[in-house]
Amino acid sequence: MGSPRVAIVVTGDEIVRGRVSDRNGGMLARWCDAHGMAVLGMAVVGDDPQDITRAVRAGIGSGADLVITTGGLGVTHDDLTMRAVAEATGRALALDPVALDLVRAAVASSAARDRVAAHIREATDRKQAMLPVGGDMLAPVGTAPGCVLEHEGRLIVVLPGPPFEADRMWDAATGHPAIAALIARAGGPPTLTLRLHGIIEPEVVGALADIPAATREGARLGICAKAGELELTLADRVPDGATLLADALDRAFPGATFTRHGRYVEEIVADTLLAHGARLAVAESCTGGMLGARLTALAGASSWFRGGVIAYDNAVKRDALGVPEDILADEGAVSVACAAAMAEGARTRLDAAWGVSITGIAGPGGGTPAKPVGTVMIGCAGPNGTVVDTHHFRGDRSLIRERSTVAALHLVRRCLTAHGA
Amino acid sequence: MGSPRVAIVVTGDEIVRGRVSDRNGGMLARWCDAHGMAVLGMAVVGDDPQDITRAVRAGIGSGADLVITTGGLGVTHDDLTMRAVAEATGRALALDPVALDLVRAAVASSAARDRVAAHIREATDRKQAMLPVGGDMLAPVGTAPGCVLEHEGRLIVVLPGPPFEADRMWDAATGHPAIAALIARAGGPPTLTLRLHGIIEPEVVGALADIPAATREGARLGICAKAGELELTLADRVPDGATLLADALDRAFPGATFTRHGRYVEEIVADTLLAHGARLAVAESCTGGMLGARLTALAGASSWFRGGVIAYDNAVKRDALGVPEDILADEGAVSVACAAAMAEGARTRLDAAWGVSITGIAGPGGGTPAKPVGTVMIGCAGPNGTVVDTHHFRGDRSLIRERSTVAALHLVRRCLTAHGA
Repeated sequence: MGSPRVAIVVTGDEIVRGRVSDRNGGMLARWCDAHGMAVLGMAVVGDDPQDITRAVRAGIGSGADLVITTGGLGVTHDDLTMRAVAEATGRALALDPVALDLVRAAVASSAARDRVAAHIREATDRKQAMLPVGGDMLAPVGTAPGCVLEHEGRLIVVLPGPPFEADRMWDAATGHPAIAALIARAGGPPTLTLRLHGIIEPEVVGALADIPAATREGARLGICAKAGELELTLADRVPDGATLLADALDRAFPGATFTRHGRYVEEIVADTLLAHGARLAVAESCTGGMLGARLTALAGASSWFRGGVIAYDNAVKRDALGVPEDILADEGAVSVACAAAMAEGARTRLDAAWGVSITGIAGPGGGTPAKPVGTVMIGCAGPNGTVVDTHHFRGDRSLIRERSTVAALHLVRRCLTAHGA
Repeated sequence: MGSPRVAIVVTGDEIVRGRVSDRNGGMLARWCDAHGMAVLGMAVVGDDPQDITRAVRAGIGSGADLVITTGGLGVTHDDLTMRAVAEATGRALALDPVALDLVRAAVASSAARDRVAAHIREATDRKQAMLPVGGDMLAPVGTAPGCVLEHEGRLIVVLPGPPFEADRMWDAATGHPAIAALIARAGGPPTLTLRLHGIIEPEVVGALADIPAATREGARLGICAKAGELELTLADRVPDGATLLADALDRAFPGATFTRHGRYVEEIVADTLLAHGARLAVAESCTGGMLGARLTALAGASSWFRGGVIAYDNAVKRDALGVPEDILADEGAVSVACAAAMAEGARTRLDAAWGVSITGIAGPGGGTPAKPVGTVMIGCAGPNGTVVDTHHFRGDRSLIRERSTVAALHLVRRCLTAHGA
């Protein structure tokens, strides 16, 4: 039967009009990929029920074993996905009494609901409890139930739009017997996921040409560049094919691969700090808190992250981090000396073993011929001293800030590794 | 002829496998929406040229006047979009000598290129300069040229994948005569975009039922909830229909609409501070820098943003912000008193007119019966005193942090408004 194939249909005017970035399609695609199910494609359509019906039918027609929809289960007039799925599968909608009870219970706990008139509340509750006949309800995570349908040997899963709800409900859907049987048919995650830092795509292309064909063709290779990192996914074509190709790439680029298991650099930084009982503090200028935000996105960060100073104004660099006034006056805030003093200030003032700093010109204004937009100094202070890297990033403000954040994480990773701690 | 219709085809294994979130589809959709062109749908497909060819043909077949593709123009073996577009339009690929010169010039400036062997470099340069016969080249922003094609009365625009390059090249493409003519046919932005804070979707549904049908039906209404805000898009169906409906919503929810022009809350905060020559400092615990990062995403933030303290550890709250030890010991870091002291500490220690603080439990660990996960205190200290709001957010760590950030921005906005500065 081969590995199950999946089509994803993302609905919502707000997405097709670009007002909100979809997160559900990516979440579902990542899940399917990790479990050995191939995503044939994603379609994003607006809240027009005919478009949704057409997209669901196209998903079925594409040969997918599983069609997953997200969005359009809310209470307003433009939430029409249940109706569209019923239409696509030639069914009627019917009130599901169990669903209605669950909707009522879910909305009862919301304080804001008391501000809605009773007859409106009753109508919106009932609207959310209408499911295609023969479908199995998925209990609401927020207030909207979803459902699982079998149709002509295919499965259809209808999920809500808010990412938190879609994520949780998909989790529940994977326990539905028919979905679980489909997942069991899939082979599980087939790949190594390498991440490399400091290497660009053409270098990998060049290295591949020098790798023996038998090794090169032993794994299917995907390459993706992202904010200064390369991600390479390797799927076995022959036994151990992915590992042998990863070994060959290691020989071509010693030290560049920082994970074979798709780990993020901040996770590696966190684990290394934790293993050695050391703590980190940050001092951020042009990134304004992005580095701290990314580090603290990891649960349990309080065990190894001390905090930091957002030293946007020079006075804050001086007063809160102890950057000497003459460095700011003579060399400027975007200088090797300032980055070093910021990292050292973060380390000593916040009582951490390690301090990392970012100071640069993210643009669009503020550049000079000597220090154009994209000039960023990144410092790392530790038990053995301080290192500062100078970068010249290309791109717009957002990209320069993102690349600075990634570069800072890699500098800390390298310093921790060099220190053996 | 009606308003031009657009189909977007996003390509990339990394996107269809969920490893990277697409940003180009949203960017293009937003642009089209703002310029009165309707996006019929987006298709996301992997790097298989047959899938790309099929998606381009489906875009043409859907009745779109314009099909835009992004991605697959790089140097590696899985970058096959130009070939797929040529196939979809029955053309050959040919080397474009001007494109080749531009590619060579673009790559010459990259230091990392010297690490690539000359024959590999020549092959990758030539690969990027192959365009469908009859297409008009779009000059590279990074190293990959794009192109504009006319096919059976439709236009096809081929853009690269990196968002910064796609954005810039789309900008250039809008100057292509055929594309410019299409844009001129569109009506321009037809809507008001309202953002509301403190209101939930069912309340709007309830309010609409009480608004006279003539007013309610005078505009097409889209509703989208996002991290504690509601976005309502209103498109005129009759002259002034959007404005009259917006007025009616204002009467139903006094003070809830903080913009009619799609402005973000941080932009309003920034403008208000700037107008009064006041500056802001932040003190962040559970958000770890997200508030600072969001504020400094605005160019020119240095005029009104002073900086902040990421006070993740209690010792940092005490030492860098001056939160009294007895507050931390007796009431805890997640308390009204601590939030107030943090906001006041940010204000006084960082020499700003306004200080805003966030302290809470983002989870998944750390909750207690008295202070469950999602409990977040947000403080704002200003010239007239200090206000603290207590929130109980639902959702996972990421959502609780995002909602906290948005709530902090709105608290500052409200305090600035109340102060008249």
